[in-house]
Amino acid sequence: MTATIICPGFKAAGVTAGIKKNGEKDLGLIVSETDASAAAAFTRNLIKAAPVILDEERIRKGICRAIIVNSGNANCCTGIKGMEDALEMARVTASELGISEKFVLTASTGVIGEQFPIEKITAAVPGMINALSSDGFTNFAQSIMTTDTYPKIVSQKGNLDGKVYTVTGIAKGSGMICPDMATMLAFICTDVEIAPDILKDTLATATERSFNRITIDGDTSTNDTVIIMANGCSGAVVKNDVQKETFQNILADTMLSLAKMIVKDGEGATKLVEIIVKGASSDKDARIVADTVANSSLVKTALFGEDANWGRIIAAAGRSKAPVEPDQIDIFFNDVLMVKNSTGRGSAAELDATDILNKPEFSITLDLNMGTGYAAVFTCDFSIDYVKINADYRT
Amino acid sequence: MTATIICPGFKAAGVTAGIKKNGEKDLGLIVSETDASAAAAFTRNLIKAAPVILDEERIRKGICRAIIVNSGNANCCTGIKGMEDALEMARVTASELGISEKFVLTASTGVIGEQFPIEKITAAVPGMINALSSDGFTNFAQSIMTTDTYPKIVSQKGNLDGKVYTVTGIAKGSGMICPDMATMLAFICTDVEIAPDILKDTLATATERSFNRITIDGDTSTNDTVIIMANGCSGAVVKNDVQKETFQNILADTMLSLAKMIVKDGEGATKLVEIIVKGASSDKDARIVADTVANSSLVKTALFGEDANWGRIIAAAGRSKAPVEPDQIDIFFNDVLMVKNSTGRGSAAELDATDILNKPEFSITLDLNMGTGYAAVFTCDFSIDYVKINADYRT
Repeated sequence: MTATIICPGFKAAGVTAGIKKNGEKDLGLIVSETDASAAAAFTRNLIKAAPVILDEERIRKGICRAIIVNSGNANCCTGIKGMEDALEMARVTASELGISEKFVLTASTGVIGEQFPIEKITAAVPGMINALSSDGFTNFAQSIMTTDTYPKIVSQKGNLDGKVYTVTGIAKGSGMICPDMATMLAFICTDVEIAPDILKDTLATATERSFNRITIDGDTSTNDTVIIMANGCSGAVVKNDVQKETFQNILADTMLSLAKMIVKDGEGATKLVEIIVKGASSDKDARIVADTVANSSLVKTALFGEDANWGRIIAAAGRSKAPVEPDQIDIFFNDVLMVKNSTGRGSAAELDATDILNKPEFSITLDLNMGTGYAAVFTCDFSIDYVKINADYRT
Repeated sequence: MTATIICPGFKAAGVTAGIKKNGEKDLGLIVSETDASAAAAFTRNLIKAAPVILDEERIRKGICRAIIVNSGNANCCTGIKGMEDALEMARVTASELGISEKFVLTASTGVIGEQFPIEKITAAVPGMINALSSDGFTNFAQSIMTTDTYPKIVSQKGNLDGKVYTVTGIAKGSGMICPDMATMLAFICTDVEIAPDILKDTLATATERSFNRITIDGDTSTNDTVIIMANGCSGAVVKNDVQKETFQNILADTMLSLAKMIVKDGEGATKLVEIIVKGASSDKDARIVADTVANSSLVKTALFGEDANWGRIIAAAGRSKAPVEPDQIDIFFNDVLMVKNSTGRGSAAELDATDILNKPEFSITLDLNMGTGYAAVFTCDFSIDYVKINADYRT
């Protein structure tokens, strides 16, 4: 999050276009100096924002040069005019950069259903292009924030056959977050050389391991978008299975770091909690139980209250629709066994649990003792500030 | 809710047994003077409290004389001791009343997983039996409250073939409420004469029309129980289809009144909102969309903020997994058309909507314009007080 974050062959910028009422940065741009392989993952919500519909079409070519992103308005439920505006946003960017508009992707985040302020955006594009620089990622990360309280950037280096390469990711949260394909906006730049189809496959696997394992409020956004661009500048090549796995691990690690930053900065959140379910009949059943616990308002308010109210955890497991044996569930807070065979272990365990609940990060494990199914998701607590933020969001 | 609420042939009481820390009433009893036909509906949560498991067995005979209920402890996840305690609670009640213990049902509500205070309950039973009176329903209703802010009683009269009969229902909420079979505790007394199998059928239909249509927080309880007793005192007979439908309508109406009282008194709730979905592909799909909107934390916090943020409503519909046409959804607040073909109707409609959102009760209708599927559920808003209540529940 310092000014030294770069990714070779990429430039970025973030400026104020006047979309947000508070005068903060609200328009960002990432540009690759050369044609980059590109892949993306989008929301599974049937209500999709105009930029999502546009990008889904354009990403099929597997090539991208630039991504323009605004915050403060989601450009969703804006009708035909909204789609015209998304196209115009890309067209003006391409024209000013002197590149083909087919290679420009767009993304938007903010309020749904308000008319899109396209004039403010097109007016700000020339100045934003002047502001492009190789260390502009922090400004970019700031420009895509909505209720986020800090910008989210992760940069890592890897090594492939002696060539050092970089993976730099930027993401934003922090409401309407629920794991379903991709989650909110994330942009990843890398200088490896990789074919679009391999990149697509790698991104899908890394998304499953990262953004699809987090939840803040169980509400899947209409604008969720993850886009990766790979421009080959480092000379590091990802082609065979070994190279692919090496790169995929670094990519998934980068994306998981961003995903955890999103949950920690969830609206009003004070805690990052990993919900682990093991011993389920299948991985799928484990995931159903983990998601139900992770999205339970009663569990999340108890986490906020630092109350080891495991009855709410076991009740959520019981209503999840996945099979559970009512009398043989064990529950751990970190390594402390709180519940054995669905019965509490008493006040000593409660005291240990309270120590854990006071921490900003910890895990809750449910062992269903039925099979080998496993899943782990990240959630946050549900605070008074979540309600305050979301009761007043549009005002 | 005055002292004049009765149901012929029934007596009730509510006393303080010392289970609740605050010294309020926490033990209640309803007794029928004669053997009553009885039916019940229970939670579908796989984790069931001991009294639910006990009642599921005993209700099969279709006869009940008494129901003893405590608040302050759910007797759930309490192991074999919990089941022994539920049996003991029924046994002592039967012994003191001089009736068969097979005809005594029990119910518990409160914290899950804490050891059950059976000694406090058995010690309080004789005094509670002395306190039984035909106008004791208000005391009973108070004794089963947890986070409820007021007792919930509805009493109605009906007429069958010239015989006047009474239906008196008592219920409690007000957290861990989500429609799935029955919801929390409700007890209904009536003096019609009806066979247990017809009563069971009637109760199931009435439950679908009432308690299964409400949600507060999407969390289905481990203790949900609805029990009806019919003692025949009025001489009104429910036997043929016409009589059954007449009685069923009054019963469903009584239960819906109780269900709406539960939502209005939902933890921290300030509004009662009916979510209506029409024009869906099927009734089932309509219900999926209605439930998703009704349980969305973002929708519910916007309702609390009196913000006509319909983008969150349409986004919830889009992620519900039921089919929707993204471009042809209409949304009404009461009769005001806010959204036509998935696009907002502007600031005049917003102003009208704000007037509606200020009211304590209103409806939101989504017309999917695809078919004839219909569903309607009741929800409440999600307030700062909900978080406060649930962060501190056990302390």
